Amino acid sequence: MSRSLCKSVLITGSNRGIGLQMVKELAKSNNRPATIIATARNPAASTVLHKLSRTYPAVHIVTLDVGSEHSISSAVEEVHCIVGNNGLNCLINNAAIGFSTNINSVTPEAMMRTFQVNSVAPLFVTKAFLPLLQTAAAKSIGMGIHRAAVINVSSILGSIELNCGDFKSYAYRTSKAALNMVTRCLAADLRSDGILCMSLHPGWVKTDMGGPHAHLTVKESVSGMISVLSSLTESDHGGFKDYRGQNLPW
Amino acid sequence: MSRSLCKSVLITGSNRGIGLQMVKELAKSNNRPATIIATARNPAASTVLHKLSRTYPAVHIVTLDVGSEHSISSAVEEVHCIVGNNGLNCLINNAAIGFSTNINSVTPEAMMRTFQVNSVAPLFVTKAFLPLLQTAAAKSIGMGIHRAAVINVSSILGSIELNCGDFKSYAYRTSKAALNMVTRCLAADLRSDGILCMSLHPGWVKTDMGGPHAHLTVKESVSGMISVLSSLTESDHGGFKDYRGQNLPW
Repeated sequence: MSRSLCKSVLITGSNRGIGLQMVKELAKSNNRPATIIATARNPAASTVLHKLSRTYPAVHIVTLDVGSEHSISSAVEEVHCIVGNNGLNCLINNAAIGFSTNINSVTPEAMMRTFQVNSVAPLFVTKAFLPLLQTAAAKSIGMGIHRAAVINVSSILGSIELNCGDFKSYAYRTSKAALNMVTRCLAADLRSDGILCMSLHPGWVKTDMGGPHAHLTVKESVSGMISVLSSLTESDHGGFKDYRGQNLPW
Repeated sequence: MSRSLCKSVLITGSNRGIGLQMVKELAKSNNRPATIIATARNPAASTVLHKLSRTYPAVHIVTLDVGSEHSISSAVEEVHCIVGNNGLNCLINNAAIGFSTNINSVTPEAMMRTFQVNSVAPLFVTKAFLPLLQTAAAKSIGMGIHRAAVINVSSILGSIELNCGDFKSYAYRTSKAALNMVTRCLAADLRSDGILCMSLHPGWVKTDMGGPHAHLTVKESVSGMISVLSSLTESDHGGFKDYRGQNLPW
């Protein structure tokens, strides 16, 4: 087995879709992290996740509802017990919801709910795990997931510049643009700790959220994303890349 | 008196700061619109606004709480009575709140509240006034405030690209980035109606929100903004400009 990507990684929303595939790929990888923390609001519902954790002792399952302050605190304590004094190297804010909301169907409630889960929750999950990320960052140098990183799974649909009206979703698009701003704010604040922060677009993926007409299998997307994650350096700090490593405009 | 900028303009949040100054400048202008609708959540509290409406019959005061669906509906009815079959030429979504929230002080409540007022409300105010904007658009050609336009008062602090961590405000910055995405979504949807839609940065202005260290007087900012508004064309549709007419990156 070659050198591991990092000692520990935590993924939110890992009961299905891209999150679940990330856990799978990392667990089966030649450079598997020693600790892979798969979190979900209701992990008991995912038999695949439980099978993975039985097959790969690196995989730990932790309950985390990203919208609940109490759930976040409990998860931080549990993760602290798992990673100990090594801290946490890589936090992947993947949990998200999607609504296709055009100008007629969009409601204030859809806007608020999508913003809460997709933009606000990643900020407060990151704030809560910051001490563990700082612990890991203090043990290494350079920038990258080998040291400490916050990866916000965003979307090309959050690119304001690239929005030419092709895909109508006021709620989803605004939430991902807002998440990209959260990435930039965090990047400014976490630089001095040596914690890399960036937005990552997984491509248009055949998942429950992406639908059957999407371009990529979840395997193709996640394989690309992990390759991008493994090669992140200081120059990617505060950036916005896709699963192929291409830079995207804000 | 030279040719008026447009027949009618409506400004939200016009009880103070930039909104109030816009009403003043437009009322005193040589190319004054025939109808200037000054709206605020509680216009009774602004004696200046009432004095303006007594001095300039063009100025109409309408109560509009941008966060209340009921208030928006009532305001649309009232405005319909004022503008009649001419419709509304120019809607300026100016009402906003600002919090200076750094990584330690930011709360989920501040994020949600700022998003609601600064990003969601402009979308639903625009949706509600859309029939009046469409009526005006149907009576003219080209693109600009002479025909029909939605102006979202945004901020350079909402530019994701330009955020280098100089001014810390997670709540305000994300809300304005989200508003810029709303601008782009609306621009795509309103193009076929001939309704121009753009984001406008007023500069850093000495107001209650901007504080005393700001660079510009509210008069300088508004004078620049009105000059920009008066010269908007199709090429500005879906764009992001500052009060001097300079394009800003998203």
